Amino acid sequence: MPFWDKATTLNKRYRTPNMEKLAGEGVKFTHAYASAICSPTRISIMTGQNAARHRVTYWTRDLDQITGGHGPVLNAPNDWNYNALQPKGTHLNHSLEAETLPALLSEAGYRTIHIGKAHLGTNYSPGECPTSIGFDDNVAGFGSGGPGCFLGRQNFGNTYAQHTYPWGMPDLEHYHGMDIFLTEALTIEAFKLMDDAIRKKQPFFLHLSHYAVHVPLRLDERFEDNYPDLSGNELQYATMIEGMDKSLGDLLRRLDALGVADNTIIIFYSDNGALAGVVPENYPLRGGKGTGYEGGIRVPMIVKWPQNAAAGTTCSVNVIAEDFYPTMLAMAGVEIPAAYQDMVDGKDLTPLLTNNGHFDNNRPIFFHQPHYHVGKPYSTVIKGHWKLIYWHEDSKIVLYDLKNDIGEQDDVSERYPAQTNALKKLLRQHLLSVEARMPTYKSNGQPVPYPSAG
Amino acid sequence: MPFWDKATTLNKRYRTPNMEKLAGEGVKFTHAYASAICSPTRISIMTGQNAARHRVTYWTRDLDQITGGHGPVLNAPNDWNYNALQPKGTHLNHSLEAETLPALLSEAGYRTIHIGKAHLGTNYSPGECPTSIGFDDNVAGFGSGGPGCFLGRQNFGNTYAQHTYPWGMPDLEHYHGMDIFLTEALTIEAFKLMDDAIRKKQPFFLHLSHYAVHVPLRLDERFEDNYPDLSGNELQYATMIEGMDKSLGDLLRRLDALGVADNTIIIFYSDNGALAGVVPENYPLRGGKGTGYEGGIRVPMIVKWPQNAAAGTTCSVNVIAEDFYPTMLAMAGVEIPAAYQDMVDGKDLTPLLTNNGHFDNNRPIFFHQPHYHVGKPYSTVIKGHWKLIYWHEDSKIVLYDLKNDIGEQDDVSERYPAQTNALKKLLRQHLLSVEARMPTYKSNGQPVPYPSAG
Repeated sequence: MPFWDKATTLNKRYRTPNMEKLAGEGVKFTHAYASAICSPTRISIMTGQNAARHRVTYWTRDLDQITGGHGPVLNAPNDWNYNALQPKGTHLNHSLEAETLPALLSEAGYRTIHIGKAHLGTNYSPGECPTSIGFDDNVAGFGSGGPGCFLGRQNFGNTYAQHTYPWGMPDLEHYHGMDIFLTEALTIEAFKLMDDAIRKKQPFFLHLSHYAVHVPLRLDERFEDNYPDLSGNELQYATMIEGMDKSLGDLLRRLDALGVADNTIIIFYSDNGALAGVVPENYPLRGGKGTGYEGGIRVPMIVKWPQNAAAGTTCSVNVIAEDFYPTMLAMAGVEIPAAYQDMVDGKDLTPLLTNNGHFDNNRPIFFHQPHYHVGKPYSTVIKGHWKLIYWHEDSKIVLYDLKNDIGEQDDVSERYPAQTNALKKLLRQHLLSVEARMPTYKSNGQPVPYPSAG
Repeated sequence: MPFWDKATTLNKRYRTPNMEKLAGEGVKFTHAYASAICSPTRISIMTGQNAARHRVTYWTRDLDQITGGHGPVLNAPNDWNYNALQPKGTHLNHSLEAETLPALLSEAGYRTIHIGKAHLGTNYSPGECPTSIGFDDNVAGFGSGGPGCFLGRQNFGNTYAQHTYPWGMPDLEHYHGMDIFLTEALTIEAFKLMDDAIRKKQPFFLHLSHYAVHVPLRLDERFEDNYPDLSGNELQYATMIEGMDKSLGDLLRRLDALGVADNTIIIFYSDNGALAGVVPENYPLRGGKGTGYEGGIRVPMIVKWPQNAAAGTTCSVNVIAEDFYPTMLAMAGVEIPAAYQDMVDGKDLTPLLTNNGHFDNNRPIFFHQPHYHVGKPYSTVIKGHWKLIYWHEDSKIVLYDLKNDIGEQDDVSERYPAQTNALKKLLRQHLLSVEARMPTYKSNGQPVPYPSAG
């Protein structure tokens, strides 16, 4: 479905009827952002902190594993939080601790259920299991961010009947060898726990985090016949998207059948931009996952909030991962602990949803990836329709006018020097305020400077 | 696979590679018997009692429901145990209580796991859940003997997300609406609990009782392409058999992978003869489920007992459902409580498996169905290759020589009067000894007499 002002050929290619249904019942966000890779986004959701603050700026996996992000000109900073999010009191090197979203919801009486991809604390560390940072239940979540395989017949990439690091996931051993796609298995597991919560009349927070759509792409045979014109990776990708969409539909149907649809908020979101390269296109956006361009950071987002948010509406205000933290706590009527409030970069989005109360539609949002991935290291600020990217390799600054140039083809920094300078200052100030870690030059070991003050 | 001395066209039609594998690792019983409908068999397994003794002689379903079995000439006895098996101390009308197989195994330290069809105590009665009669775990077992549907997409016959009497089964609500066949779902559920037992090093008794193969027949699409020459009911039936066989294969693989295959006994068995009528053939046997003919009561049986029973062998001794009770207790080294021993009709089959110790290969086995079903009411005795049926409607006695007439075409009672008389006396004696309940004549309300003493 289109999150732009017109439908593209890709919108026509992919079948997502349940996303469309959800959008019809809620608010579609056309300018929702995430980090360009998953870990930073996920930690932002859990902590309310911007990536530059929480410093889990690259993907993570195992205890003390420095997963890379070096490149030809720069090395990744050596003090990013590669052990990711850890339970309070762990005091593990290169990790952060926080008043997490699930912990606060759990303390407030919500049953907090994690299903699927966790990727919050590293494997073999205390934070490996989501239950360590505030979830009451966990199925299939651990330190790795992708599955070995999406097929039950191939044990989801595990050794048969075992949980096998690094890419096998735990808890699903009973599906090994069986005829089921991972997306379907996770949905079944989610329903088991969600139903239990509903039966017990427990308010619940279900964090249903599909491993799909992620590499390694696999054909979800159930939907193969729907894409006669596609083949190879493109066919696999399309069927995986439809499987994820089916899961959303299953969830909507179930909430309805169990009589809780009218007092259940649903948030649909992706933890990074769409894959590019493996599947060739991300039109109209430039780049894909791992890059500083819109294809890496702009994601689909839909929020259904019955009785509070007008159904079938669209919001074009810029929003970002860390906003979920204050938003969901506000929705649940849970206060952020006073001592933690200064750590929260996200903003409560409920005014945008309810059209009640003030929201600064023009506030800046920030991105910080001091690592090479598919793309090069960068820091970014977006304010309104202006986007400034500070490329770390050469300290080059570019400015895009997203309103008129969603494909980021024209650097207009020279045409709009005042705008460029204003955004650069905002970005510098943000990086300074959180003491953002910068990559270092291979040539001399010195860190890349923040954008200049001048 | 053939359980006869030659392969038939039906053996060639159905694909059961895992049954064949199991037979290659164990003992194939070519003369294994059950009651012609499921309930009597299931109660015999749990209690060690012959159907004439335990009096659950017809299928059961709900508390105090008299499920029928009347016909044009006779009415079913009015004091059969239509409330089936109940927990000790329940003292429910028309039910029996027993020292059950799972209770004794559980007391001896086995984790007793029931998965799938239970059909032991009636719905809404204390015996509805298998945990009430000695199982430590139950998934999907309740008082009904069949599923509403085999498809997850159709909620297995339940109202979506609910357990719906009488044909929906409990515990599988999380699969409702999902793309899974019931046989696969039950196997997954079995693995979850079995793995847990193995991980905890608990000895376990897994009673994996598939609802398949049972009406309502449904296509198991996974295997559709394997039967290009079949259609309709025959195709559905074939795919359901193969799904059941796949589950057996999954189980074998799993026991192997978990390192317990060498000390796990596997018994494969059916609770009644194959369906006839809906699928048209049961060749070479006459009749099918619900009839007194071999098609109703002769069933496949394979026992794998590593290190104790010779792999790839065949046993042609007559065995029957109630034998499992003393056999499995002997295998587990569990004594039958002294006060209960006189109630046990079954015989310990371990001498047949190990070729160690005495077994009376010529003992009589008994069948008693004082109800109409697909066939007419009857009592039967089989001894060696002789089979005598006493038809209740007209008190007619027929004798078949199963060795030379497996299809029961020639009544040889007049040719072998001494044999007929001897079997008749055995049958009379058995029915007398257990005070077997007989149907009554519609004409005068009197019970059908036992076979005459003369």
